[in-house]
Order: sequence, then C-alpha cells, then structure tokens
Amino acid sequence: MNITFPDGSVREYEKGSSAISIAKSISNGLAKTVLAAKVNEEVWDLTRPIEEDASLQLLTWEDEDAKKTFWHSSAHLMAEALEAIYPGVKLGIGPAIDNGFYYDIDLGEGRSLSLEDLPKIEAQMKKLAKNGSKYIRKDVSKADAIAYFKEKGDEYKLELLEGLNDGEITFYTQGNFTDLCRGPHIPGTGQIKAMKLLNVAGAYWRGDESRKQMTRIYGVSFPNQEELDHHLAMLEEAKKRDHRKLGAELELFMFSEKVGAGLPIWLPKGTDLRERLSNFLRNEQVKRGYLPVITPHIGKKELYVTSGHYAKYGEDSFQPIHTPKEDEEFLLKPMNCPHHCEIYANVPKSYRDLPYRVAEFGTVYRYEQSGELHGLTRVRSFTQDDAHIFCTQDQLKDEFLNVLDLTKTILEKLSFSNYTAQISLRDPDNPDKYIGSASNWDKAERAIIEATQEVGLKTVTAYGEAAFYGPKLDFMIKDALGRSWQLGTIQVDYNLPERFELEYIGADNEKHRPVMIHRAPFGSLERFIGVLIEHTGGKFPLWLAPEQVAILPISDKFVAYADEVRQDLMRKGFRARVDYRVEKIGRKIRDAETSKIPYMLIVGEKEMENKEVAVRKQAVGDLGSQAISDFMQSLSKELESE
Amino acid sequence: MNITFPDGSVREYEKGSSAISIAKSISNGLAKTVLAAKVNEEVWDLTRPIEEDASLQLLTWEDEDAKKTFWHSSAHLMAEALEAIYPGVKLGIGPAIDNGFYYDIDLGEGRSLSLEDLPKIEAQMKKLAKNGSKYIRKDVSKADAIAYFKEKGDEYKLELLEGLNDGEITFYTQGNFTDLCRGPHIPGTGQIKAMKLLNVAGAYWRGDESRKQMTRIYGVSFPNQEELDHHLAMLEEAKKRDHRKLGAELELFMFSEKVGAGLPIWLPKGTDLRERLSNFLRNEQVKRGYLPVITPHIGKKELYVTSGHYAKYGEDSFQPIHTPKEDEEFLLKPMNCPHHCEIYANVPKSYRDLPYRVAEFGTVYRYEQSGELHGLTRVRSFTQDDAHIFCTQDQLKDEFLNVLDLTKTILEKLSFSNYTAQISLRDPDNPDKYIGSASNWDKAERAIIEATQEVGLKTVTAYGEAAFYGPKLDFMIKDALGRSWQLGTIQVDYNLPERFELEYIGADNEKHRPVMIHRAPFGSLERFIGVLIEHTGGKFPLWLAPEQVAILPISDKFVAYADEVRQDLMRKGFRARVDYRVEKIGRKIRDAETSKIPYMLIVGEKEMENKEVAVRKQAVGDLGSQAISDFMQSLSKELESE
Repeated sequence: MNITFPDGSVREYEKGSSAISIAKSISNGLAKTVLAAKVNEEVWDLTRPIEEDASLQLLTWEDEDAKKTFWHSSAHLMAEALEAIYPGVKLGIGPAIDNGFYYDIDLGEGRSLSLEDLPKIEAQMKKLAKNGSKYIRKDVSKADAIAYFKEKGDEYKLELLEGLNDGEITFYTQGNFTDLCRGPHIPGTGQIKAMKLLNVAGAYWRGDESRKQMTRIYGVSFPNQEELDHHLAMLEEAKKRDHRKLGAELELFMFSEKVGAGLPIWLPKGTDLRERLSNFLRNEQVKRGYLPVITPHIGKKELYVTSGHYAKYGEDSFQPIHTPKEDEEFLLKPMNCPHHCEIYANVPKSYRDLPYRVAEFGTVYRYEQSGELHGLTRVRSFTQDDAHIFCTQDQLKDEFLNVLDLTKTILEKLSFSNYTAQISLRDPDNPDKYIGSASNWDKAERAIIEATQEVGLKTVTAYGEAAFYGPKLDFMIKDALGRSWQLGTIQVDYNLPERFELEYIGADNEKHRPVMIHRAPFGSLERFIGVLIEHTGGKFPLWLAPEQVAILPISDKFVAYADEVRQDLMRKGFRARVDYRVEKIGRKIRDAETSKIPYMLIVGEKEMENKEVAVRKQAVGDLGSQAISDFMQSLSKELESE
Repeated sequence: MNITFPDGSVREYEKGSSAISIAKSISNGLAKTVLAAKVNEEVWDLTRPIEEDASLQLLTWEDEDAKKTFWHSSAHLMAEALEAIYPGVKLGIGPAIDNGFYYDIDLGEGRSLSLEDLPKIEAQMKKLAKNGSKYIRKDVSKADAIAYFKEKGDEYKLELLEGLNDGEITFYTQGNFTDLCRGPHIPGTGQIKAMKLLNVAGAYWRGDESRKQMTRIYGVSFPNQEELDHHLAMLEEAKKRDHRKLGAELELFMFSEKVGAGLPIWLPKGTDLRERLSNFLRNEQVKRGYLPVITPHIGKKELYVTSGHYAKYGEDSFQPIHTPKEDEEFLLKPMNCPHHCEIYANVPKSYRDLPYRVAEFGTVYRYEQSGELHGLTRVRSFTQDDAHIFCTQDQLKDEFLNVLDLTKTILEKLSFSNYTAQISLRDPDNPDKYIGSASNWDKAERAIIEATQEVGLKTVTAYGEAAFYGPKLDFMIKDALGRSWQLGTIQVDYNLPERFELEYIGADNEKHRPVMIHRAPFGSLERFIGVLIEHTGGKFPLWLAPEQVAILPISDKFVAYADEVRQDLMRKGFRARVDYRVEKIGRKIRDAETSKIPYMLIVGEKEMENKEVAVRKQAVGDLGSQAISDFMQSLSKELESE
C-alpha cells in the first residue's frame, strides 16, 4: 500500500503496517519521540494497523494532537492508580483538556478525596508508569461491554454504553485497567515520565445539576521532568499575574454583587488606564480617517430583528425591555453594527463618501452563564473598540492594509511582539453556504491574503471557517508567559448591507451596495486590559501607567519640597503623587513597589538642600540622586522610545 | 385697616378699598401700569375690595403673576371674539401658559378652524378690546351657574361645575361674554393693546384620549405693539436656532426610527463637540480632585430597590430585564448614584479619604412618553456629567464652593454670562417631612447660603422646595434670546448613605456616616448641548467648533496648496478641512457659512504665489489676505481669550 507523507512524498509499505513500524523504518530516534499518528486526517494509535493507501503524519510532543493523546492516556493511568488505591471506585469520563486532563470519579458513600490525597495518587501513577504497560485497543460487542461493566458495577459506564451501538465500541486496557474508550492513546505508560495532580473539584455527572455530584481530579503530565517544572513555574507565575488579583491590588476595577456579576466597575486608576488606551487608539484612528460616533446602548427589538441579532442572541441573552406602552420592546445592544448601519443610511451616500469609517467605543451587553464569567476576560458588559467600514469591493484591500497597519501600531506600542493571524476562508466544498457572489468572495479573500503578505504578517489559513456572510482575519497574540489569546478581528460582511438595504450612488450614477468591514483591534477594552495586565504583570509601559512617579518624603519635614517636585512634574504633564502618610520610608517604598509605580523619588535632607531627587526604579532599585530637571529629561526620553 | 407694602411700610386705608384705588392714592401713573395685585400672597383683581388688614404688592407687567393674569384675561377676550364670529361655540378651558394663553373650543359638527381663520379672530379681539370693557367678578350659586350654562348649552362648563360647590363658584363678565372662572383678571380689555394668535392644534377634552378632540387656539398678547413685535422676532429667531433643525443641518446628531425615538445618535461632528466638551469638564474636574470612574448601564433590580429608585421609576419607566436564569432581573440605570455608592463601599474609608469625589459621564435611561420627547432637551437616554462627593458634614461648605467655582468656570467658558440659582430649603412648617437631623440640615442650609454669598451668586430662596433627603441648589441660565433654562444641580443627600449603610472611620476611631452631594454642572450633555446650540445659533466658540477652518480652493489648480495650508494648520493642532468639491467659490463660501465654520481661507493664484490665505470670518466677511503664520497666530490669540 502507498503511504503519503506531509511533504508529499509517497512510500510503499506492507498492508497492515502500523505507524510505529513505519516510524522505525525511517529512524529509531523518531520512533522514540513519536506519540501518535494522523492517518487520513484522523488521530490514531501508533500501533493500529493501516490496511490501505493513506496519508500519514507522525505526531510528536510539539503537535497539539499528540499532547491531547498523551494527556488522555495519562487520565487512564490516573484511573488505574485510583482503582489500586480506592477499590470499587466508579468512573465517569476522563478527557484531555487544554492544559492537561481530568477524570470524574465516584468514590462511593463515605469516601472522599482532598488535595492532601493527590501526592499518594501521583506516586501510584509513577509506580505504574514505570511498568511500561502498553495501551491495548480491542473492539467489543455491546453485549460484552455491558456484561463487563455490570460485573464491575460501574453504572456510569453502563449509562454511556446506552448511547453506543455494536461496531463503535472499543475498550483500551493498560496493566490491570480497562476502560470504555474511543482512543487514541500513546503506545505505553512508560512515556509518561512526569506528572502532577493539580486540583480536586466537584462536577455534576454529565454537567446536569440534578444528577450526582462527582469528584473531578485535574492533572497534567509531560514526557520529561524539565517540561513539567517549567509548566508548574509558569502556572505559579500566571497565578501571580492573575488580572483579577492584580486588578484589586492595583485598584483598577471591581465587581459588586448588588450591581451584578460580570459587570466590571472601573475604579479611578483603571478608568485612567482605560481612557488613556482608548484615546491612544482614537487618535490613531482619526489619523487614518475614522469618524467617531456615539450610539445608545439599547435599540428597538425591530432593529435587531432586521439585523438578525435577535434570532442569534434572543433566547439565551438579556431579554427584551418592555415599557409602559404596550407592544413596545427594546433590547440591550449585543452589537454596535445595527446602529452604525442606521448612521450610514441617515443621508444618501455617493461613491465619493466611501470608504465611510464609523468608529465607536461601544459598550455592549451579552448574557453569559454565571459559571462562565471570569474577571475582565469573560464578562456580561464589554466595550468594543468597534468600527465599521463601508466601502466598495475594490477598496477592500486598501482598507485591510489600513487596519493591519493600525493593529501593528497598537500592538507594538503595547510591547506585544509575538502575534499571528488566522485567515478564515470559505469551505471550497460547500459554496452554497455563503451569501454574496462567488466573484466578490474571490476578490475579498484575495484582498485579505495579499494585504497580510504585503505587511509580512504570519498567518495560518483555515478553510471552511469563514462566517456565512464573509471571510475574516483573527489576531492571535502570545503573551509574556507564552499563552495564546485571540483578540482583534477583521470581518468582511455581505449580509448586513443587504439586510439594511444600504446603498451608494456610483460614478456610473447607479445604485450599488457597499461592502461592510467589522473590525476591533483590541476586541474589547475589558478583555484586552485583562490580557495586558497578565502580559505585563501590572507593570504597564510608562506612557500608560496611571501613576508614573511616587514622591516619597522621608519625613513630614520634606512634604513641602515633595509638593514642589510634584508641581514640577505635573506642569510637564507627568502623573505624580506624594505619599503623605506618616510611615517609615521602607514601608513607603514597599507599597510603591507593590503598586508597580514605575519610578519612586525619595526626598530627604540632602535632596532638599541640593534640589535633587533620589531616583528608584520599580523592580530595579536605586539609580542615585539627580537634579529634578535631569530626571524629567530621562522620563521624556523613555516615553519617546516606547 | 392697615395695608403693609413690600418695603415693610404700613399705611391706613378705609375698609373695602381696592388695590386700584390704593394705587391711585399713590400715583396716577402707577395706577395706569398696574395689572393685578398680590393680597396676602394671593393674586387678586385690582378692583376687588380688601376688607381687613393685609399685605399688598401691586403687580405690573414685569411681574410673572401680572403677565399670567394679563394672558388669562386675553383668553377671555379671545373667547368673546369667538362667540361673536362662531355663535354657539362651546368652550372648554382657557388658561394662561408660559408664553401666552390658549382656549380649547368645540365649534360643533361641520365647523372647523385653520391658521387662515386666525387673523379674523384677532381683528375681532382688537375691536372688542377698544371697547375697554371691564372684567366684572360675581359670586354665583351652583344652581344659578348650572342654569346659566344649561341655557347656553355648554356641556363642558357644566362638567366643570360638577366638581365645584356653592361658595367657590365665580363668574367673570366682560362685554357680552360671561365665563365660569376663578380669576383673577386685569381691570379691563382696554389694556390689551397688542395680540397675535399663533397656532391651532387638536387637544383632547381634559387630556383624555377617549374624550372629544377639541380645537386649541394659542395666542400671546402685550400691553403695547413694541413688546409684541419683539416677542414675534424672538420667536422667529428661536425657530431659526431650533437645535433640532441646526442639529441636522450641522450634522451633529440624528434620530432613527429603528433605534427608537428619544435615543440620540451622535454623528461625527456632534461626537467631536460632545467629547471636547466632556474633556474640558473632565480636566477641570481632575484639577479639583475628582476621580473618574466608569460603571455599567445596568444593575440588578435589588440595587435599585436598595437605593429606592425602583420604587420611584419602576412602573413608569423601562421595565426590568429578565435573563435565561429564573428570578434574575436587571434594570437600565436611571441614575448613576447607586453604582457610585458601591464604589465608595468597595474598600473601608477613613476620614483621611474624604472628600471622596467620584465622577462619571454616565449614560442613564428613563422612559418618557413619546409625546413628551423633544430633540436633545427631552430624551430617553442622556449622559449626566455626574459626580458624587462623599464628605463630612463640616466639609459641605468647601465642597459647595468647589462646585460653584467649577460651574462658574464652565459657564463662562461657554459665554453663558446670565445665570442665577434657586436654593431649595426645608418647609419650616413641616420639619417631620425630612430625614437627617435638624442640626445637620441647619448646617447644610447655612453652608449652601454662605457659599453662594461668598462667590456672589445671585439666588432666590424657595422654602419647602427641598427634597425630603436634603437641600439643593439649581442653576437657572438665560440664553441669548432671554429664555430661562434649568441646567445644573447640586443636591445634598442624607438618604442614600443611610440606605447603602456607608461609613468612614473618623479621627475618633468611631464609625460615622458620610454626607453625599450629587452634582452635575451641565445637567446632561444632551440637554446642555441642545441649549448651547440655541444659545449660540450653532456658532460655537472657536475652541469648541468641530471644524474651525474651511480651506476653499478657487479651482482644482489650488488643491495642492490648500492641502499644504491644511497640513500647516493640523500640525499646530487646529481643525481644518479642504472643500475639494468641483463647485464655484461662491457656493463653497455659502456652504461653509451655513455650516457655521468660524473661518474660511480662500486660496487662489495670488494666495499661492504669495504663500498667503484670503481670510473670511463667518457672518462677518472678508478680513483680507494674510500670511498663513499670521493667521495661525491670530487664531491662537482668539483661543486664548475665550
């Protein structure tokens, strides 16, 4: 049979060869690092025989699919360990997740499990892993499967079996443990060299609050100890940088139970940061021809019926707002676009008015389940740095270039240097799924691809991921801890101009329909600031820091001089405050450090006499005494270089 | 009997003397200008006999009460004229209003009335007025009154009589016309020298949509023709300055039927204006120690139950917003204060943290009947320039001084030079109506009065007009047409700190309750901008104009030079645009004039050669040619002087 490799090369192998044997035929070294295989785009066990011509990709730890397989196998290993320690334990489901795995278990009446029990389970896993048992796949009939779990007495697996039919049931066995499982798995437990169980939580069976609450054990595992250590250090650092924790410590934002979960309230320093960020973006937008507008936070239900948002957000979101007048209903706006379409339609447009770029920092409201809420990154009210560009088909590429340039400017100003984009295009096999003519789609997709190439943006292309109303581009940003975040979007839209019957008079004096681009470089201010806090650990760039300088008088005697220094700084446009508290200077420094204020100026006898300040840089330390004018000059220089 | 005059002097008069006879005893000139009298604080006919000791104020045209009496008498005169022209006409009610009077009439089947009929009625009124009939008051029994109107066949008056009892029914007669009327009236029709009927509209009997629709005729009248001419010119000018008309012409804001009535949408130029205005205020506030915050536009219903706003706005306003979760309800916020109380309560406060001044440009939503909506001045969503000051009782006066200083700065920057304030205090006869201790009220009232005196603000004091939770001060502003507008407010509040159980730790280490001040110098951005548009007729001060300079190339040949001029201006921070249209220069000038752009720079052959610009000032005209640098210098000077 012919096996086709990712580079397009084709080799002949005996029918029934497995991916691992093929790996060995290439190199023994490869065979050791390979964890799973993609056969005809499906992830398979390495040991599963391939019976006919196929494409083959050997997956190593670097591949997301291999990681998922590795963690899934680790969940089985944990289950094996649990059965050894807690005989009779019943098992729910145990999948791989984004960063590790979990298993939901039922220890039975009278037995429970806490964080203290985890090391014991970990130790058992290590012991079992050293056995190097193979994960063995076996097709099983439904009757046999039921018989097996009946005997074992595991009602959860029996319930799962109810939804399965003969021919689609497989068991996986390693050592003394057998699980109902679709697979795939890594070859053997011996590859799981390092593991850590992280947490214990309650979880309802099948996510249903009316069912049994099981115990969920979270863990993560790696092919070597170094990777685990690195991961745990990263988790530790991420905990320190958690924007919810820093948001409270730096007094940036708060939540109130009475106002409601998921509705951020911006405190003075957070408001300062947010407005500075918006103003920066606003100015960059005005330079690029955007027109700022302000629209209300509600609209008549009919508006969202016209736009189609009511059909999309209706039932699962905030419900319509009634008024004393019968049959009158408003909705909290889930999107700004319908309002912007109405602005476009306000006065007739000609081709000379295009591109027409309407921008708004528009706060929108979308209901999320309370369990889904998370700090600023998953909220019920958020402010999009929204804009809608109405243009002709031929202007699409220039507008994409304009937006890419804007996004690059912004991300660089905020020291996000590591970002890529995903381009989502049509599914070539389903051309009927999409509205708008094929030739317009061709043009739009080409415009996006060419624009990203021209600016040298790294991209991946996802066929079939386009919305039905147009292709799009999403920015993926890596933060300082190497975590990926999806932030801004540029979305082409052939749908809303149609629904709102938007028009312009062309040079040919005929009516034409404009194309619409939705774009938000930050995505939302809330989410972006959440990510920015974690990216910087709260040490914002100098231009953005709500307080740039803390002036710390050594004692009351120097408060007047401290005020003088502050006046000097304020006059030059720097943001400074004096710590007037009657506290030891050590405490004042410590508190300013915790508040991540970029510079501290300590003023005492000597400084006052010499009209100087003793400069201390946050997280760096003493920079010596300077004349206040010298210090301000160096501040200005730093700001210019940012 | 003793008559006490407003200056405190007391004179003796014969029992049964009337105010007019007393006026004559003082001066014949006075007797001619006097229109009504205030006897013991009640407005009376001049001719009504005074039977015992009383205070007396003689009212002339300058007094609001005299104007109202004059217009009420004019309504009777119009009714007399109508009966002469339309025999059998039935009459509803005919009161004085803010600027004139109206009468609701029923002409009967088959008869109607339009604007063209008004001059005829006016002419008849003039003829009757020349007769100089006296308005004669007569007490009537209910039976006699019913008999009179039964015979006359006027079912409206009969219905009004149903609500009246013997002893409180009076008729007024002038010439051939008698009306059921409580009075008072001016002495005779001869004083009504000038009148104008302005409009005809439909109006439901007693404002009830299920009752008969009557014809309402609006008019206004004056003691001389000059005043009428002035008033009509003012009305004409007000029509030109109508902010709804100018708002569309200057492309400042729009409304959309699909978004909803009363929900203003700010277009690019309006957004620029609004943000410039907010930024100006924001900066002035930061200078004065305010802390900007941002809060969501909704809150849980419980929040507004706690604050008491749900009880106040609940039924008549936007109804609660349900979510997919049962028993969860949110409300569009009608006020920002509950959110700000939650911010105050976020972390424990000490006396050192006070005054704590939280400021937000917060958009609130309140339902108004669609018939009540009016441009930007009566809307369903508006943005308060809101702040809440939490302070100690002893800080009240300083905080009032701080707010008065801020308000003065703002009003002067916007060339509102004519403003006064109303101070609303407790009703001394009803001390139990108010929450908070009497001594705190004393202090607060004294603080307000002293603060206004210190800054020399003209005030009137209204006893009994305070809210139950604290005294307040309202700014009344006169615009360029002499019309009064109520804008900003400063309100002391002892209630919300109580309801939210707000506290601070005093210097005595004990818990205390702070006082709260609500204040909004503009009131709302929408209403303020509406008034500002009418005040300035759309000719905003230079610093605020969305576009300061229009550059008008005489032909295509000078577009490049025009762009150069624009670049120069933009670099210096001026807001300029080029009129690129292929239009005659006359048309370009006309359009820039209509757009109220403060300066036009006309550039042609000569200007390009000499690197100059031909300057034209809006509404003034040609200022001659200047070097662009000279023009920019004079612009800067103008901005500084504003």
